[in-house]
Amino acid sequence: MNDKPRFDFTIHATDGKARTGEIAMRRGTIRTPAFMPVGTAATVKGVKPADVRATGADIILGNTYHLMLRPGAERVARLGGLHGFMGWDRPILTDSGGYQVMSLSDLTKRDENGVTFKSHLDGSRHTLSPERSIEIQRLLGSDIVMAFDELVPTTSTPEVQAAAMARSMRWAKRSRDAFDAGGVHAEGAAIFGIQQGALDQTLRGDSAGALIDIGFDGYAVGGLAVGEGQEAMFACLDFAPGQLPADKPRYLMGVGKPTDIVGAVERGIDMFDCVLPTRSGRTGQAFTRNGPLNIRNAKFAEDTGPLDPACGCPTCAHPEHGGSRAYLHHLVRSGEILGAMLMTEHNLWFYQAMMADLRAAIGEGRLKAFADAFRQAYDSHAERV
Amino acid sequence: MNDKPRFDFTIHATDGKARTGEIAMRRGTIRTPAFMPVGTAATVKGVKPADVRATGADIILGNTYHLMLRPGAERVARLGGLHGFMGWDRPILTDSGGYQVMSLSDLTKRDENGVTFKSHLDGSRHTLSPERSIEIQRLLGSDIVMAFDELVPTTSTPEVQAAAMARSMRWAKRSRDAFDAGGVHAEGAAIFGIQQGALDQTLRGDSAGALIDIGFDGYAVGGLAVGEGQEAMFACLDFAPGQLPADKPRYLMGVGKPTDIVGAVERGIDMFDCVLPTRSGRTGQAFTRNGPLNIRNAKFAEDTGPLDPACGCPTCAHPEHGGSRAYLHHLVRSGEILGAMLMTEHNLWFYQAMMADLRAAIGEGRLKAFADAFRQAYDSHAERV
Repeated sequence: MNDKPRFDFTIHATDGKARTGEIAMRRGTIRTPAFMPVGTAATVKGVKPADVRATGADIILGNTYHLMLRPGAERVARLGGLHGFMGWDRPILTDSGGYQVMSLSDLTKRDENGVTFKSHLDGSRHTLSPERSIEIQRLLGSDIVMAFDELVPTTSTPEVQAAAMARSMRWAKRSRDAFDAGGVHAEGAAIFGIQQGALDQTLRGDSAGALIDIGFDGYAVGGLAVGEGQEAMFACLDFAPGQLPADKPRYLMGVGKPTDIVGAVERGIDMFDCVLPTRSGRTGQAFTRNGPLNIRNAKFAEDTGPLDPACGCPTCAHPEHGGSRAYLHHLVRSGEILGAMLMTEHNLWFYQAMMADLRAAIGEGRLKAFADAFRQAYDSHAERV
Repeated sequence: MNDKPRFDFTIHATDGKARTGEIAMRRGTIRTPAFMPVGTAATVKGVKPADVRATGADIILGNTYHLMLRPGAERVARLGGLHGFMGWDRPILTDSGGYQVMSLSDLTKRDENGVTFKSHLDGSRHTLSPERSIEIQRLLGSDIVMAFDELVPTTSTPEVQAAAMARSMRWAKRSRDAFDAGGVHAEGAAIFGIQQGALDQTLRGDSAGALIDIGFDGYAVGGLAVGEGQEAMFACLDFAPGQLPADKPRYLMGVGKPTDIVGAVERGIDMFDCVLPTRSGRTGQAFTRNGPLNIRNAKFAEDTGPLDPACGCPTCAHPEHGGSRAYLHHLVRSGEILGAMLMTEHNLWFYQAMMADLRAAIGEGRLKAFADAFRQAYDSHAERV
């Protein structure tokens, strides 16, 4: 794959602050704005890789924290890397593990070197540092490696937030240096830095400046979608993306609800990941152009229509042939695996169709009209229960 | 579908007592010997209908007991029948519910009319009789309807066994009469009687005679595979199939392990159903030509080979691309849905390949050599843990 570019971001069109384009990488091209389905433990839960690809996904996300614990990064490397292991040959972005260490593990030590924690699976002790996080992502064979950063609760004092941001910038430099030192699967990979600074414009600006000084292939907006609410998040996104280089992809980590994504695209974000479509699919929530619906609701028991008439997923395409709301209601209420499978696949189709619609709207200079119509239909709650 | 035959059984070749042929029905042709995957609650658990078909399945089984409780037979009828509801357009055989009433429900009353029981789901009270069982199977849109019979524990006295067999024969007549009275989805359906009589050759012969006097499209051997062991089952199958008409399909209900099926085919059985491939798939057991293996075993953690190199399933076909034992080991140990999905699909492929091999061996007059080689390889336990 040597004749292909390592990481070429091309902007095809802009519309206000929004941009559409593509990232050319050796394992494939990522159309932006892009949504990355989450494949936590080397699987997008409940969907075969070929069916994930059929939704329109150009890239998926893998979780360093989960994979380092099980099956283990060195094991994945011995087995040839994550792509062959799980049967996904297109780009994979791996997070750094920092977020999950804070949210899932029993954190036992945190200092300038890194963090020590106990596994949520078996209580075993592990350490993560910028160097070890990058090494793990290399071992997995990640295409887009994320810098290792420090997260603190949003309820922390401004002083704690500032200190965590400053440490994250020192760790960003160490991450970049570790990345540049090479290692297995080094060829063709890219690395993103992560802007921190909570909701503070000055801290965000300082963070962006530090990252730009180091230099990255792309820049993530970190530390949002952690409970601050859409209004506060959008207020931050009114300035944060503009502090990052215009010629590099901007990735809003862990976002989000459909209207979060539309609003963030309007504010200049190019990449997203979120467990919402997959996790919701397993609990019976379907996304539709008229808002979310809970398929468990009794009113769907004899509903012969599809989840969303405008959806192109294999289930919605054939309501009369195993694709009715009534059938999905039955499957989900019965706890059948197929219910989780079909609901998840539908939700991924919904998300990818939304991204395709956003890309087309930006390309044709009609993003505001599209976004307003999307929000109006989505918030109509026609099917909300 | 009026120009197609309702139920035409043609034997293409025989080899000893074994036969191979096909049953032509309006919704499709069933190649025999046939294995029917079990789709208990209107889904073959964890496998999309198109993927079930891709394994080579010509027909699946639905459970009257489960479907009458949830979503309900009248509801399925209002929604157009089981085929459209679940997206399977080929033949479906439905059992009568008699077996599940005994094994799953809280039986509150049993008399000449039928049985009254409490649902295992919510404790609600229901009744089943020959007439109601046939009505439910009609409402579901079953292609092959099973007569409603009475089952008693195999530990019952000979007198109890004889009385239950005699009652089952009276119920068989009532089932046939109810079937002949028509109703919804009547066109194109067939009905099978069920031979009872435990392991007793005389009782089995009397049962067969009673069924033949009534007349059915096919005949099931019932009351086996309930804990008597393979030796006792084969001893019964040495005479039971021969008591049934040679020109009609013979269906051994609820069987079984791969070597059970091979031995039963050698003894003249044409049709099988069993939850083993699907249930085993969900618990991490894979069937292979060298016997079963438990993918959870630690020795598979870095095994880059496929479950079975001779298997044609999409997973075994690409061990280097998401199909290795190591990956399945990881998925199953992690409790991932995809593990259950891929293991189940593999097991269904294994069963259908076994049936195809049996049909080919009978057609070419080499069944004994095939069966002996199959048993030798299967019992070699090369991969057993």
